[in-house]
Amino acid sequence: MSGNFFEDFKLGQLFEHRPKRRLTEGDAAVYKAVYGSLFDNGALDELLVFHTVFGMSVRDISLNAVANLGYAQCVFGRLVQPGAELSARSTVIGLKENSDRKTGIVTVRTQGFDGAQEVLSFARWVMVRKRDAASPAPEAALPELASVAAFPPAPGEAPGFSIGRRIDHIDGTTIEEAEHAMATRLYNNVARVHFNQFAERSGRFGRRLVYGGHVISIARALSFNGLEGTRIVAINGGRHVAPVFAGDTIFAWSQVLDIQGAALRLRTVAAKDLPCDSFPEKDGVVLDLDYWAILSP
Amino acid sequence: MSGNFFEDFKLGQLFEHRPKRRLTEGDAAVYKAVYGSLFDNGALDELLVFHTVFGMSVRDISLNAVANLGYAQCVFGRLVQPGAELSARSTVIGLKENSDRKTGIVTVRTQGFDGAQEVLSFARWVMVRKRDAASPAPEAALPELASVAAFPPAPGEAPGFSIGRRIDHIDGTTIEEAEHAMATRLYNNVARVHFNQFAERSGRFGRRLVYGGHVISIARALSFNGLEGTRIVAINGGRHVAPVFAGDTIFAWSQVLDIQGAALRLRTVAAKDLPCDSFPEKDGVVLDLDYWAILSP
Amino acid sequence: MSGNFFEDFKLGQLFEHRPKRRLTEGDAAVYKAVYGSLFDNGALDELLVFHTVFGMSVRDISLNAVANLGYAQCVFGRLVQPGAELSARSTVIGLKENSDRKTGIVTVRTQGFDGAQEVLSFARWVMVRKRDAASPAPEAALPELASVAAFPPAPGEAPGFSIGRRIDHIDGTTIEEAEHAMATRLYNNVARVHFNQFAERSGRFGRRLVYGGHVISIARALSFNGLEGTRIVAINGGRHVAPVFAGDTIFAWSQVLDIQGAALRLRTVAAKDLPCDSFPEKDGVVLDLDYWAILSP
Repeated sequence: MSGNFFEDFKLGQLFEHRPKRRLTEGDAAVYKAVYGSLFDNGALDELLVFHTVFGMSVRDISLNAVANLGYAQCVFGRLVQPGAELSARSTVIGLKENSDRKTGIVTVRTQGFDGAQEVLSFARWVMVRKRDAASPAPEAALPELASVAAFPPAPGEAPGFSIGRRIDHIDGTTIEEAEHAMATRLYNNVARVHFNQFAERSGRFGRRLVYGGHVISIARALSFNGLEGTRIVAINGGRHVAPVFAGDTIFAWSQVLDIQGAALRLRTVAAKDLPCDSFPEKDGVVLDLDYWAILSP
Repeated sequence: MSGNFFEDFKLGQLFEHRPKRRLTEGDAAVYKAVYGSLFDNGALDELLVFHTVFGMSVRDISLNAVANLGYAQCVFGRLVQPGAELSARSTVIGLKENSDRKTGIVTVRTQGFDGAQEVLSFARWVMVRKRDAASPAPEAALPELASVAAFPPAPGEAPGFSIGRRIDHIDGTTIEEAEHAMATRLYNNVARVHFNQFAERSGRFGRRLVYGGHVISIARALSFNGLEGTRIVAINGGRHVAPVFAGDTIFAWSQVLDIQGAALRLRTVAAKDLPCDSFPEKDGVVLDLDYWAILSP
Repeated sequence: MSGNFFEDFKLGQLFEHRPKRRLTEGDAAVYKAVYGSLFDNGALDELLVFHTVFGMSVRDISLNAVANLGYAQCVFGRLVQPGAELSARSTVIGLKENSDRKTGIVTVRTQGFDGAQEVLSFARWVMVRKRDAASPAPEAALPELASVAAFPPAPGEAPGFSIGRRIDHIDGTTIEEAEHAMATRLYNNVARVHFNQFAERSGRFGRRLVYGGHVISIARALSFNGLEGTRIVAINGGRHVAPVFAGDTIFAWSQVLDIQGAALRLRTVAAKDLPCDSFPEKDGVVLDLDYWAILSP
């Protein structure tokens, strides 16, 4: 009931996450209301699927997390239609205690399924508290994670895009506490730092922390203005560079890193309280996301 | 248009509440986003059904309520599936003027129907203002209400539970005004104290009061951590011990009062701005709920 | 990507708005949660359809608007059922530069379609910034817009209503920022003044402006208390008399302007932080809406 602590994890351990989660047109509408994304191909938004599979894993993996550190090798499979019942499981693929002995890094491979069909797979690593600093640490094991995710070729072209091009998405969205909390609960995410102001008042930041995925979805919605017609098929990596709180206004810019057929490798950077017409790289940056999107007809 | 005042009610009076309310997967998604409950058996959450039937009765019964005082003999029937059109009616079963002659207690038996099938029945009593303190009062009539609700036997066992066991549900949820208002409107509840900050600024508390049922749903969602696998089948009684406002953080603990086959009689206590690892009984307590839940496979 | 400025518009220009928008039971549930409207005839709320068609037009027409000035000749066609995919297009029917040369008035006729069937048509005029005050202005053209919308006759009677009668809708609803933002995003409305607190902090009002249509929907929901059983079939005209912000409490009153069979010509006036029992005409008024509603069985 208190969740797993670092010393509870074992290399190769498999978690079948409970409960399952059926995503409906109702969930899609709440997602739409929170982010306003204009991307729409009739299926569920790929990030709604990502956040839900991620959220389903929180009770087992990251209830006692200090910070979610990164993602890699995230690949989206078949589009998920409203009404699908998602299941999710995670396998521990890396463990390493930190030198302070109070925390350790847990790396998992998490998979999401629509029935028997895998619709999503990603690796993530997260810093998890130990129950007891004196507990013995497992032998350190660090997985090899390719820096670029593999995904099926996308024949075609990407007219209007060129490698190196930078795009300011112009608009900004201010985060409201209620929107953030509603979205994060929609994903079955029960991480404590997001919902309990009483506890967070005396915590690290004095306030509730916004779920990093919320910022990804806001940045993605903003990027419609410049990236219309794209669909995310893989995430190479993502870093939450700085914490985000209700009241922050998120802006975003993107750069084309590579083009392969109709697939664009994009880097989308989000900043808070900082318009992105100067393409910020450091100060104010909160998210740095490297992903593949295909131009869908 | 101003709603019924105490002197408008008559013993035996029947209200067929209007309008009816169709509950869909969309409503289920909003409910999910507001509470994040992980309880899910494919049907609509029993508390969504409860709040909706309750809310449908507000225009006729409690638009001029000072306080909702309690519930009893609440029994849930068949599970309600998304798409069901609910109707509701209430019968006045008790009336008693208060000694100040400005208010009186109205007790009603409210029933909710999915088509012709009763899906919910409960008694509630509420303090209602008189239009005019000088109006004659109806003859006092107080209904007999059993302190334990009758519900069909649940054969089986309750492994892992024992009478007297107390469970701290650990997590806390901070209430946001927008979430509370959205949920309460979802239920067709139009009680004025919940929505009108202009009027409440000069009212009893200086601010909008949170609908008591909102706290029940938050406490229930928190209780998944310890009561996973249960489904509410009856509510013996509930008291809103202290008012709740946006900004309050709700915690909860439960105790097993009785076990009959696979049915658990539970008491769930919610407190505000007070973690429940010490199982508070008084200070900080806002809700005291006595109900039956069955362990569903 | 920066939207159209005044000098970009041409008389007769046609915009096919993108993307299309499928409205589901999920959207209906979010709408319900935000406004709590008790009007319900099984179809999508006519104002949800209006706001969505309006919102779909914003990227092309009013991304650089200073103010949305008015509507006229708004006629609703067939009811729209959940699941309908709406498309929308706008034709420029009026252009007139303002004397300061920094802005101009653009008038469009916007139509909404459910498949091939027109479900909504309205004219609106909006003040749009010029990119460059020195740009040449198009020749001024002002459309003739009838002050009363034409709609199919509604045989029958309007029992209980009489011309001139005024109705105080009594209740008040306080606007929360999150509710307003969620609703407005639901409509695909991306007008910048609604979402970006960072920019608006140094803008005209120092804060985000509430979408005018949000106030229409709140006033309509309040008007159930007195106008139960009505359905909007046409809007003759609407004016947003004063800006509205989160934290404002909206009240409303209505007057019967005309009766034709079962059709009522109504004026609904909304005020902020001002109960409407004295039927305010000026101070505090934020919305003045003139429309036809039919009494539906």
